[in-house]
Amino acid sequence: MRRTVAFQGEPGAYSEIALHAMYGPDCEILPCLSFLDVFQAIENARADCGVIPIENSLAGSVHRNYDLLLRSNLHIVGEYHLRVRHCLLTLPGVSLESVRQVWSHPQALAQCGEWLERLNGIERVPKADTAGSARMIAAGGHRDVAAIASRMAAERYGMQIQAEGIEDDRANYTRFLALSPEPVHKQGEVKISIVFSLENKPGALFQALKVFAERNIDLTKIESRPIQGKPWEYMFYLDFVSDGIEGQVPSALERLGSRATTLRHLGTYQRHFWHHQR
Amino acid sequence: MRRTVAFQGEPGAYSEIALHAMYGPDCEILPCLSFLDVFQAIENARADCGVIPIENSLAGSVHRNYDLLLRSNLHIVGEYHLRVRHCLLTLPGVSLESVRQVWSHPQALAQCGEWLERLNGIERVPKADTAGSARMIAAGGHRDVAAIASRMAAERYGMQIQAEGIEDDRANYTRFLALSPEPVHKQGEVKISIVFSLENKPGALFQALKVFAERNIDLTKIESRPIQGKPWEYMFYLDFVSDGIEGQVPSALERLGSRATTLRHLGTYQRHFWHHQR
Repeated sequence: MRRTVAFQGEPGAYSEIALHAMYGPDCEILPCLSFLDVFQAIENARADCGVIPIENSLAGSVHRNYDLLLRSNLHIVGEYHLRVRHCLLTLPGVSLESVRQVWSHPQALAQCGEWLERLNGIERVPKADTAGSARMIAAGGHRDVAAIASRMAAERYGMQIQAEGIEDDRANYTRFLALSPEPVHKQGEVKISIVFSLENKPGALFQALKVFAERNIDLTKIESRPIQGKPWEYMFYLDFVSDGIEGQVPSALERLGSRATTLRHLGTYQRHFWHHQR
Repeated sequence: MRRTVAFQGEPGAYSEIALHAMYGPDCEILPCLSFLDVFQAIENARADCGVIPIENSLAGSVHRNYDLLLRSNLHIVGEYHLRVRHCLLTLPGVSLESVRQVWSHPQALAQCGEWLERLNGIERVPKADTAGSARMIAAGGHRDVAAIASRMAAERYGMQIQAEGIEDDRANYTRFLALSPEPVHKQGEVKISIVFSLENKPGALFQALKVFAERNIDLTKIESRPIQGKPWEYMFYLDFVSDGIEGQVPSALERLGSRATTLRHLGTYQRHFWHHQR
């Protein structure tokens, strides 16, 4: 039986590219309207697993997904760093000179701002997402409109790629997480994600981080989110890398557990190595 | 000469309430379209100072304003914690039964979700902001539409307050910052905001926080934002409280400066004490 993987967006979305990179070309896809729908599709077994963006190297964290991770019981089972390469798509045979508008997600429009400047007088029209913009142009036969979307979106909707790699900053990566109802048990050099809260007193965060520093455990990300109902108190999300040395991580988590008011393990998963492209 | 204070939004916005709490009732106000406009109004001397929201206790940090603080040379000169009390406003003489729609900022609509559930079948229409919704209803004479906005917005636009304090969670606070071209020199128990970056190596953040923990300096907030062009590297924004003991803060900053790749002082200002209302 083929695996069904949920993601937010329309076919051809960057999430779908990440999904196939992680689960292979042959899985079934389940496009969802919202991130909450992705979580619920897995929880209700309409999908076997799902893929969500958690952070972009230019725009920052996807805070909504941090909040949803806290409320769900799903496990993080993998990560993938996607180099985001935006394309300018039109209907086949359209010349760039006849394009009057460009449709895309506001973030994609912003990320191609300098490149679009050079196309004199093209109007930027924000839409709900990148791939959906390509689909709407194809469906509506709009010959004077272009979309900013992925190469996969061009293939999905039979659009022509007028230009590729039009993002102003090439250090444009999105980190995706794979979610599943069951944890994986990875060994060796793995990444571990946890979330915890602390007593609201001086030095509490420092004492928590000390647990890792003392054991030479490399923190790769720390993110704080407000706790509902407790102004100026935070949940801390931590990612760290384990080199697989027996005992270091369990002892760190045990020590942290004795200091934290809450502590939850979100997942232990294969670390994705990525190469910085210039 | 009266002081001119810039803020984002329309007259009656929550930012305007915070502004008068910090600068008194008699200052001139300069409403701006965007947060960037607020920064530029001060930099171009169209305003003497400005007030921006930096964090809400339910929704989290206003990341856009962290990014703008980094790029500008303005100084933080004060903070204020506003208890956000949403009101349902209509044109005078309108009965609640005849209201079919409610207009407001999406965050305000979400924060009053449970209360709105009890008004059967009222349609929620997202608008750019709270006070602007009240203004549009007043200007258009819409007798079947209500706005969620502040008490000040009701007064500004001659609207009737149908209900007050309709937010589902009363622990709803927004922290505002006052910005000025010139720093203030406060003494005693003050708050200090800095931003810094670190070498991308294990334990770097822990070593940076150690500088404060060793001196018993209380960190009140830490926030990370991506560095453009350097995937997965971050600028760290730190707020801490100084008890005024001579020498502790300067020595901590000197020590941090020797470890950090960049370090900037954003402001030293009077700490705002607030009381948790239940």
